[in-house]
This record gives sequence, structure tokens and C-alpha cells, in this order.
Amino acid sequence: MPKYAVGVDFGTLSARALVAEIGTGRELGAATMDYPHAVMTRALPDGTPLKPDWALQHPQDYLDCLGCIVPEALRLSGVAPEDVVGVGVDCTASTSLPVDAGGVPLCLHPAFASAPHAWPMLWKHHAAQRYATRMQAVAEARGEAFLARYGGRISSEWLFPKLWQILDEAPEIYAAADRFVEAGDWIVFKLTGQERRSASIAGYKAFWHKRDGYPSEAFFGALDPRFARVVDEKLSRALFPAGSRAGGLDEFGARLTGLPVGTAVAVANIDAHVSLPPAGLVEPGRLLMILGTSTCHIVLGEQERAVPGICGVVEDGVVPGLFGYEAGQSCCGDHFKWLTENFVPRALADEADARGIGLHELLTERASALRPGESGLVALDWWNGNRSVLVDMDLTGLMIGMTLATRPEEIYRALIEATAYGTRAIVENFEAHGVRVDALYACGGIAKKNPLMMQIYADVLQREIRVARSSQAPALGSAMFGAVAAGREAGGYGSIVEAARAMGGVDCHGYVPDAASARVYDALYAEYRTLHDLFGRGGCDAMKRLKRIRDAAVDARNGER
Amino acid sequence: MPKYAVGVDFGTLSARALVAEIGTGRELGAATMDYPHAVMTRALPDGTPLKPDWALQHPQDYLDCLGCIVPEALRLSGVAPEDVVGVGVDCTASTSLPVDAGGVPLCLHPAFASAPHAWPMLWKHHAAQRYATRMQAVAEARGEAFLARYGGRISSEWLFPKLWQILDEAPEIYAAADRFVEAGDWIVFKLTGQERRSASIAGYKAFWHKRDGYPSEAFFGALDPRFARVVDEKLSRALFPAGSRAGGLDEFGARLTGLPVGTAVAVANIDAHVSLPPAGLVEPGRLLMILGTSTCHIVLGEQERAVPGICGVVEDGVVPGLFGYEAGQSCCGDHFKWLTENFVPRALADEADARGIGLHELLTERASALRPGESGLVALDWWNGNRSVLVDMDLTGLMIGMTLATRPEEIYRALIEATAYGTRAIVENFEAHGVRVDALYACGGIAKKNPLMMQIYADVLQREIRVARSSQAPALGSAMFGAVAAGREAGGYGSIVEAARAMGGVDCHGYVPDAASARVYDALYAEYRTLHDLFGRGGCDAMKRLKRIRDAAVDARNGER
Repeated sequence: MPKYAVGVDFGTLSARALVAEIGTGRELGAATMDYPHAVMTRALPDGTPLKPDWALQHPQDYLDCLGCIVPEALRLSGVAPEDVVGVGVDCTASTSLPVDAGGVPLCLHPAFASAPHAWPMLWKHHAAQRYATRMQAVAEARGEAFLARYGGRISSEWLFPKLWQILDEAPEIYAAADRFVEAGDWIVFKLTGQERRSASIAGYKAFWHKRDGYPSEAFFGALDPRFARVVDEKLSRALFPAGSRAGGLDEFGARLTGLPVGTAVAVANIDAHVSLPPAGLVEPGRLLMILGTSTCHIVLGEQERAVPGICGVVEDGVVPGLFGYEAGQSCCGDHFKWLTENFVPRALADEADARGIGLHELLTERASALRPGESGLVALDWWNGNRSVLVDMDLTGLMIGMTLATRPEEIYRALIEATAYGTRAIVENFEAHGVRVDALYACGGIAKKNPLMMQIYADVLQREIRVARSSQAPALGSAMFGAVAAGREAGGYGSIVEAARAMGGVDCHGYVPDAASARVYDALYAEYRTLHDLFGRGGCDAMKRLKRIRDAAVDARNGER
Repeated sequence: MPKYAVGVDFGTLSARALVAEIGTGRELGAATMDYPHAVMTRALPDGTPLKPDWALQHPQDYLDCLGCIVPEALRLSGVAPEDVVGVGVDCTASTSLPVDAGGVPLCLHPAFASAPHAWPMLWKHHAAQRYATRMQAVAEARGEAFLARYGGRISSEWLFPKLWQILDEAPEIYAAADRFVEAGDWIVFKLTGQERRSASIAGYKAFWHKRDGYPSEAFFGALDPRFARVVDEKLSRALFPAGSRAGGLDEFGARLTGLPVGTAVAVANIDAHVSLPPAGLVEPGRLLMILGTSTCHIVLGEQERAVPGICGVVEDGVVPGLFGYEAGQSCCGDHFKWLTENFVPRALADEADARGIGLHELLTERASALRPGESGLVALDWWNGNRSVLVDMDLTGLMIGMTLATRPEEIYRALIEATAYGTRAIVENFEAHGVRVDALYACGGIAKKNPLMMQIYADVLQREIRVARSSQAPALGSAMFGAVAAGREAGGYGSIVEAARAMGGVDCHGYVPDAASARVYDALYAEYRTLHDLFGRGGCDAMKRLKRIRDAAVDARNGER
């Protein structure tokens, strides 16, 4: 009798559930749902305004999605619930929330509903940037050893800058919180009734190390005396490796998912990191780009190396026994969404409607007719800051080369190219610091749907790019970890490496670089690098000064409210 | 009995005729018409493709407009044709065309209809840039004295680079041309049957000087031996001052305009320069911005000074007895047109339609709700190159500070602000080189219609800005020069100063700087200056390199046709 596993992937804007067959990786049913509150950047549900760079989510959205998409994916798959042996969950990170002693999010208490700091702070909540900046200065001054594992830079996308922001700006919320939990861990807690925190999330997003644990009380105390005991007061030192069993579904979790009580649930994973096994990648030197709202780059290595500007290297963080290196771009698909939602003229929108295609499809078609270099444009892909290799969320977008003849499809292509240049900078940075990158792989909706983008990436990076077979790699990866949590006896697997060999793989067809395009892109990439270093490494700090001018203008407006 | 004058203004995209009452300046009737062929940048009428940076016009468009709008303006005014004593014409410059011995444009000969070089090259035909660059190098090497009068830089927007391009790229067209004529002079020739070239146009656009005449044969010969005698072979040394009588309407001109044969016609003027008298500006130190597709800045001075980066200083060029200084921005309203035509989303377009307003009006309304600095954006206003103070048509647009929250109205406002910063750079440059700027004035459609833009200019420039009373200053200015051509005896004027005192003036209401906004704009202007000097003065030549990469890509594509 075939057995099955369910994976649920909590992304930035939506959640997706997948039912996969153990042994083959066949995807039998999937369902997706947008978060009803999406990402809150301008106001809380009750209208309370948010400052620039805030990005919050609604915790009820996670549960509402679970209750909808797991039963729906099961129904579509035709699989009997009792044949599902394990459930895995992945989530964006660090996306964290304060909870009370019972695990109820503070924001759901009426007393805190209007307090922005009580809500889940999404990974891209960049309003914590100044805490990240100060934290880095202190860590550098103290010579903290952990810093080298995180590329030498502390990002506002991680956990501790967010917690410090809460302590500093809203001490009453910090005090009221029994503890802070990663959203992925909180979802697993809601499914099982057990709080079993993920060592992988803590490793990548909270400076935790397999042997050294968390940074010291002295370090946190140097930031703020009230912050000294943050780990023991507001987090937990009990952490569990990826693939381990968090528990079984409890009554609530079973009712929500439609699966039997006791079904094995795996410890949570990060959405990007969970994507390597579905592509069959469990060996060193194979870099996977997970292309979505933002991009993550994960590559496995046999040694721990200090690589500046990466997001982190964590032993066992992706696959047991190897070092999982993570780098990333804070903005990938969000660039194209920004353009199509705000800057595509009516004539094009009407054309797309008349032809029954989407705006992305139409712009891709037009952009495909352009040659490399023909638009005369180069952009810096920093609309949402720079995660690697500069690790600076105060950087912003730049575009150069516009003329009166510049058209939307040229901007669209320039934004795609900019993200490819950003990836090339990341790959070159890995190689320059001793992390082998022998082959390139991609996954994510964009990788499956946009051949133009994949070809541009191959041309810019001058390597073949292979694409993961699954179009929903994170959800499949979570299902695979669910199968590992169930264990071999229950019809699952003894390790994620076994699961990857049986259930993972890539498409037969790869994207091969075109020599003529690669030559032009070499010249364009040189321009990108010049601008990248000029605006990103202190040559011209205009972006930072403009952000400060902007913040003062927003403060002045709010002061008049 | 009141007398009247007719002014006809030939702009970049349309022509406008105005009937004005002599003595009061009252505007009794006006009519406008778009050129049927607009600006040809991609192909000739027969489909022959054009390379990047080409910009041509169709000479028949000028005559078709004349024949339509002068009779229509007369009809609307209710003025009897025999009460019109004079006609004046202004035109963009240098916009030149090759003609045969009879004055017929070469492009109208079937043999040359597919030859791009046979068509009128519009001022913004920037494809002559490399000839301008080489010409400047030669002029500098030879220590040519004329260069100092043109800000030390030679622009592709002027006459000789265009003629040299024709000689070099299409010697058969150059040989076939009996002579080259400015479009303004050609229109006067068509009205009167007399070729009476404008000294003012030659002064500003063809290095002509009241005492020194044209540059020497030795200079032109140093460019190309075949070019040595360009003035005597292809132009004329007979030039006539502004306000002088070119002749009377001949049969053809009378039929076209509906005015009596013999009506006085003034020598042609440049569209920008003709706008000072309608604003009542005939004294030193008052700078007029003529805001349109591009912007011209004209200020009168008592001495001839060498000011780097200006377009030119010409004695008697605007008002007899004074030195008329010209500077400019190659792109003003074209920036906003580019945005509204290509980058305004359907939702906004639909909203504008539903409210019965234009896109500019809607974007202006939304941009008005923003504070200085709030968008976090700064742009370099170089979508069409930089005329002053860098005089470099190979520069292109730049925008910095975009985030995922950036909206169309923010880009719109950032483009307005960029043009204001560009104007401030020009005013500061005049003052730094001894040309007084005591007061600021504006005219043109934008100045009358967009209070937000005028307020931004006042805030950025930190001076009050007064706006010319007439909403069609160039056409009124041409009418005033028509009245001067007619002379005092016929009911006109003895000089343009007399005409300006009687018929010119500004609105009562001026735009006064807001102190708080001015402080923020000081900070933003500092960023603009940093980027301006970085990308415009050789610190980072990315724009030029991107143009070369683009040109190679276009050549490669055309090579495969």
C-alpha cells in the first residue's frame, strides 16, 4: 500500500498544501490560499497607521489557510487521510510573534490589537534596521565570534533586531509577552499542542550554533541591560533538528487538517532551505536558487568557512552532516509585481485582457523580443534593500539609462537582468571565499513559468541552469520532512537524504548560456558592479540620506495628525 | 481704429497662431494644430527605419498648419484681415533642412524621400552627437575664440554638427543640397518668397557673431576639407536682425494665411527667445524660463561674459543693445509625457476618465498631497540628455530611491523636482560667472496650468516666480515682432522695447517659496548635485558606456535585417 505525506508551505503572501506519494514524489493534490490580510505595510486591521518599512502579518491567517488548503489538497488527491503518515511545515523566517503563556498571540488580545509591535513581524519588516545596525556595531566592538558565520553583517530580517525594536519602542509589549516564537514553530505548536522549536530556524535567524548555543548574556546586556536575559526570558534553549518529530496532531490540529489524531508532524523548516531535497540536492557544491517574492541561494559545503555578506552557515541546517550556506536577495519577483501593478499602462492591460493573458506574460513576450543591452538600462535590484552580499536594508532601487524612448517591457527586462546580476555577485562571492559552486539549480514558480528569465540567468551567470522538477518545491520538501518525521517503520524515511534520492529530481531540459548574449552581459554586469560598489559600499551614500529625509518628512506629517 | 498683428509659433509637436491687438496685447483669437507627422524617431513616412537618437520633421506639416491655424485664429478673433499690419514667426532651432535652388526641400523630391538625411533635422536630433564631440575637440585644439560664447561646449542641437553628419554620412545629400536653411527662415521664405535669414538664429545656433561673422574656413576645413566652404557654399552671410522686415506676404503666403498680399512679415525668431517681450522683460537680470517640451532660460545682460555650459550669448539676440544669454534643459514636459503615456496604470487612467480629467491633472492632484522628500526619490532630468550646464546629449536618465511602495505620483513629482533642480543648477551657474539673476519669471503652458510645479520651482530655487500673463507667450512675442516689422507708421511699433512696454506683462499673483519646503529641498538638491557631478562630469561614465552597448545591440539587430 503506498503511503503519503502532506507538506504545507507558508510563503509571504499565501500558503500552499501538497499531498505527495512517498517513494515516487508524485504530487497528487495541491491547494493554495492567499492570506486574507496579506502583508500589512500601511495600517493594522483596525486602521492604526504603520510607519515606513513596517511589514506585519495576521496570525489567524495561518490557521485559516491550514483549515482550508489541507482538506482541499486531500480531497483533490483522492488519498485517504489514514494513509498520510506525516506532515511537514515550512515558513518564512525570521517571522516572529509575541505570545502569552498559553501560546495565544498578543495581537489577538483586544488590549493589544492597536499595538503594531504586538503583531507578527514578517521577515521583511525592515523598520528594525537601526537596531540591526547598532547590534552589529556592538558585536564588532566586542569581537563576537558568531558574526563570522553570518557574513559579518546583522540583518533586520533576523530575529534579535526585531525583538530589540519591540523592547526599545514598546517595552510594555515586550514585558507582556510570555515569549516570542517563530511563526513556523507557532504553527507546529498549534498542530500538535507542543512547542518544539526548530534548530535550523534558530541557526539561520537567531545566531544559534550547534556547539556554542546562543550569544552570551553579556552581549545582549551590552545592547540594553533589559535585553541581557532575552534567551532565557523570552525564547528557549530547547531546539530540535530538521526532520525530527515535533509530535502528533492533537485534537485541534486533526480537526483543522482533516487528518487523524497522532499523525506525525515534523519540526518546522525555513521555506527556502526545505527546497533542496525536492530538487535532489543533498551533496556539496550545488547551488539552488529559490526564486519567489525574494530569492534564497542555498549551497551545501563540507567545511565551515567565513563568507562575508552571506545570511549564514549552519551545520546540519539543511542536510545532516553538511554545512548549509544561505545567501539571498531581498527582492526578486516583488520587482516585477511592483511594475505590473503600478506602471503598466492601460493600452497594455487592455491588450492582455483581449488576448486572455496576464500582464507578466505580455511583458515577458515583449521583453523577449529585445536583445541584451538594447534598452540601454541597468538597474540595482534593491527595491527592498540588499540581503547579500551587502546586507543593508537601507539601500534602495536605482535605474540608469532611461530615455524618452524607454518602454515598460524594457524596464521589465532591466529588472529581471538586475536580479540576475545580483545572483552573479552572490555566486562570485561564494567562490571568492572558498565555497565551491559547481552547478546551478533553480526552483520556485518563476523558474517554472518564465523561460526568458531562466535564459537571462544562464546568460548572465554563464552556466547551465537546471530547474527542480516540482513546481512547488517547498511544499514537497515539507512533505518529505513529514515523511522523515514519520520514520521508516511507518512507511516514511530514515533520513532526508533517503527521501531526496527517492522523491527529488530536476527537469530533463536545462537552460544553456548563449555565447553572444553572455559577452554583452559581461559588459553590462561590469556596469552593475560599478554602481553596486559605488552606492553599496560607501562611495555615494545618497540612498541612505534620502531615506533619512523621507523618514523626517513622514514624521512631520504624522506629527500633524 | 485698432490694429492687429499675427504671431505664429512653431513648436516641437504643434503650431499655434494668435491674433493680438496692438497697444493692449489683448489676445483675440488663437488656433493650434498638431503636426500630422509629429516627430519622426523610428521611421520615415515610407517606413524607412531610423537609428536611435534620430528626430526628423516633415516640412509640409509647417505649411499645412499655417494654412489651417492662421485663417482659423482670424475667424475666431473677428478681426478683418486688412486690419492686420504684421506677421511674425518663431520656430524651434536649430531645426534645419536641405533645399534645392528653388527652395524646395530635398525630402519632397521622390529621389530623396527614403533618405533620412534629406529630411528636416529637429533640434533634438541627437544622432549628430559624435560630430558635435569631434567639432568641439577641434575647436578647443585650435583655440577658437567663438567657443567661449557658447559655454565652451558644442551641442548636437545646433546647426553645424548636423550639417557635418550629413556631409559625412550622406555626401550625396550634402552635394545635392543647393543650401541648408533653418525651418523658421524657410517658413518666412514660403510666406514672402524672400530668403531673409535670421541673425538671431544664426547667432545662437550657428556660431555667428555680429562683428566676427562665422568661424573661419580654416576651422571648417580642419573638420573635413570638403566642409571648409560650408558657409559660402551651403548657407549665407546675409543675416537680418530680429524685428526687421523680411518682406511682404506674396501671393502664396497671402493665400495660405488669408491675409492681404504685402502684409509685413518679420524675420524669424527662436521660439524661446521671442517670449521675453510678452512677459514685459526687456531689462537685464530677469531670467525667463520657457517651460515646454524642453526648457529655455533667457536672461539679458549688459556685458558679454564667458559662462561655461550655456547655449550661447548673442548681442542683440533678444533685445537690441543687450546681450541675450541662453541656457536650457533638453527635457522638461517630455519627462511627464513619457510617464503618463507609458507608465500610468489602468486604474488611474480609468479614474481620470470617470472624473473627466486628464492624467496630468490626476497625477498632479496626487503628487500635491506629498511632502518634499516624502517619496525618498531623486532623479537626474536627463531623459533627453543635458543641454546646460553639462552640454552632453549622451547623458541619460537616472532615478534613485525606489522601494516597493513607490507609486506613479511619486515618480511624477520626482521628475518635476528633477527639472527644478536642473534649473537651479543653471541659475547658480549664471551667477557664479557674473551674470546677474535678480528675479525669476516663467511662461509656457506648464507655467500657466500647473501650480504644483511652479510652487516646487519657487521652493527649490528659493525665489518668487512670476508667470507671464499670456498663456501663449511665443505666439504673442511673434505677433509683437510682426508689429515691429510693420513699423510705427503702419500702426505697429518702432522697437520691440516699445512693444513690450505696451503689450507685455505678468500675472498679479506670484509663487512665493515656503521656508520649510525650501529647507528640505536644499538637502535634496545637495543629493542631485552629487549625482549630477558624479554622472555628468566623468566620475562615473556608465551612461555613455550603456549608450555604446545599446548602439552595438541595435547595429547587430539591423545587420540581421
